[in-house]
Amino acid sequence: MKYCVGVDVGGTTIKNGIFEESGKLIVKWAIPTRKEDGSAHIFEDIADSISTKLTETGISKADVLGIGMGVPGPVLPDGYVEVCVNLGLNERFPARELSALMDGMPVKISNDANIAALGEMWQGGGKGYESICMVTLGTGVGGGIIHDEKIINGCHGIAGEIGHMHVTDGEEESCNCGGHGCLEQYASATGIVRVAKRKLLETDVKSLLREKEERFSAKDVCDAAKAGDEIALETLEYSMGKLGLVLSYIAMCSDPEVFVIGGGVSKAGEFLTAIIERHLNSHLNMIKKKEKNVVLARLGNDAGIYGAAKMVLE
Amino acid sequence: MKYCVGVDVGGTTIKNGIFEESGKLIVKWAIPTRKEDGSAHIFEDIADSISTKLTETGISKADVLGIGMGVPGPVLPDGYVEVCVNLGLNERFPARELSALMDGMPVKISNDANIAALGEMWQGGGKGYESICMVTLGTGVGGGIIHDEKIINGCHGIAGEIGHMHVTDGEEESCNCGGHGCLEQYASATGIVRVAKRKLLETDVKSLLREKEERFSAKDVCDAAKAGDEIALETLEYSMGKLGLVLSYIAMCSDPEVFVIGGGVSKAGEFLTAIIERHLNSHLNMIKKKEKNVVLARLGNDAGIYGAAKMVLE
Repeated sequence: MKYCVGVDVGGTTIKNGIFEESGKLIVKWAIPTRKEDGSAHIFEDIADSISTKLTETGISKADVLGIGMGVPGPVLPDGYVEVCVNLGLNERFPARELSALMDGMPVKISNDANIAALGEMWQGGGKGYESICMVTLGTGVGGGIIHDEKIINGCHGIAGEIGHMHVTDGEEESCNCGGHGCLEQYASATGIVRVAKRKLLETDVKSLLREKEERFSAKDVCDAAKAGDEIALETLEYSMGKLGLVLSYIAMCSDPEVFVIGGGVSKAGEFLTAIIERHLNSHLNMIKKKEKNVVLARLGNDAGIYGAAKMVLE
Repeated sequence: MKYCVGVDVGGTTIKNGIFEESGKLIVKWAIPTRKEDGSAHIFEDIADSISTKLTETGISKADVLGIGMGVPGPVLPDGYVEVCVNLGLNERFPARELSALMDGMPVKISNDANIAALGEMWQGGGKGYESICMVTLGTGVGGGIIHDEKIINGCHGIAGEIGHMHVTDGEEESCNCGGHGCLEQYASATGIVRVAKRKLLETDVKSLLREKEERFSAKDVCDAAKAGDEIALETLEYSMGKLGLVLSYIAMCSDPEVFVIGGGVSKAGEFLTAIIERHLNSHLNMIKKKEKNVVLARLGNDAGIYGAAKMVLE
């Protein structure tokens, strides 16, 4: 039996998992992210933790095909990471460092959104497909593109960064990236709330959201929409309309078999994916037969470790 | 010495070329496209023509690795072509048909815009790169995406169909695809003329274009812009601004190394690519170092036969 290890490095915790080649998760665990001194010790911590867990589970290093690792930032084709803002990590080759600490064990690396996409293709909502686009709707909007079972990383490591596609002219607020009118400003959890607040200001229509004054979440907007609230429905039409538009751009670029929607906002379920799918298909005039092509993610926060491990098997 | 054959099937002529594996073009020729009876005889004509030319050049069929063919329409992953409007071709497997007519010689097939992109990567403006996006600015706007030296065809055969990305809300005229506000409506040769005419109506500003009344071309717009004509410059800012925006979508999807601009409009040269590049980069806040990433195509109408032949070598 051969094994592979997946590591998903986040700003507060590092998730890890040991998998069989088949995709079966043997064990998963998390360690805190030690960010002091520019994350100087982060790879030592990972290496120690994996070695300890392999010993505990009685798996020999010789039976481990390799480690896959995801980091929250762009990764260049040679594995170079110029900057990971969330980790305070700068100008490093994380895969080489971890490999050296693991006696030369092969280590592959990619962006965290990309490994989540690969994980969902392998064992999640995109299982059975070879080409998918995964979108994570959380605080921001992340994306990953899988083509022929492989991550597209891109020459600057920004492939799949769909949250920063420009979708609205004339936006006055600026996005974290410095741009104005990025998808993330409308379709993330915070974006949905922002859109709803704007709609509330534009009209006097009664709304469940108005009763909550300034204190409601994207979940509240989705719940209100399900209950038929007009403002909440208009908000999702707008926000998910922008997402559907962006998915049509992906369809006319890499044309994946399916779009997988994950992240906290996706808990609204098929109510939400149906809106996204309707907008997506409204922009795809050149496709006659439109199948169900927007589905829900299934692996939750484990998607990253699944995808990281899958990279090893490429 | 081994050879490969490239065939680029167009609505009026079929272009053909025999290449060495190195990419050297040995001979090229064209035959008319016989469209009668739903293009019933089109593949017989191609097979006869290739066989004749191989005999003439003294190349044995045994030394031909295969044939690559491009057709003007979407090709599904199994080679199925549901419809090629320009050829009157419906529900066919063109590669299988041509292979059967060539004693089982391997035949690969893709969309014509995609093979042009592969050709430009192999021996044209994208030579030396592995991942490119090619855009053809002609009567319409075509596109092809090459990733790791291979065409991305997509599950519906619409990968690279960037001409139909929706870029403008509220457009009243409809696009050939049935949509409203597609890139093609602004950035194609006809689109550029349409944008210029609208600008002329909006103002009384003097313009070289106004003197031509309703009879000017995209080339005239580019020439006037080079001469400093205000309306012409505004037109290209708008039209190429929309193209630059769409290229930023491609950058955030497959993140190619370079964008190659071809087609009749691209004869305006680096004056045009500089405008496109400026708009593209204005949307890429997440990339710090911006290299020269928009270049001109070099193979002209031969790009298709180059790329078709290159498919054989994959």
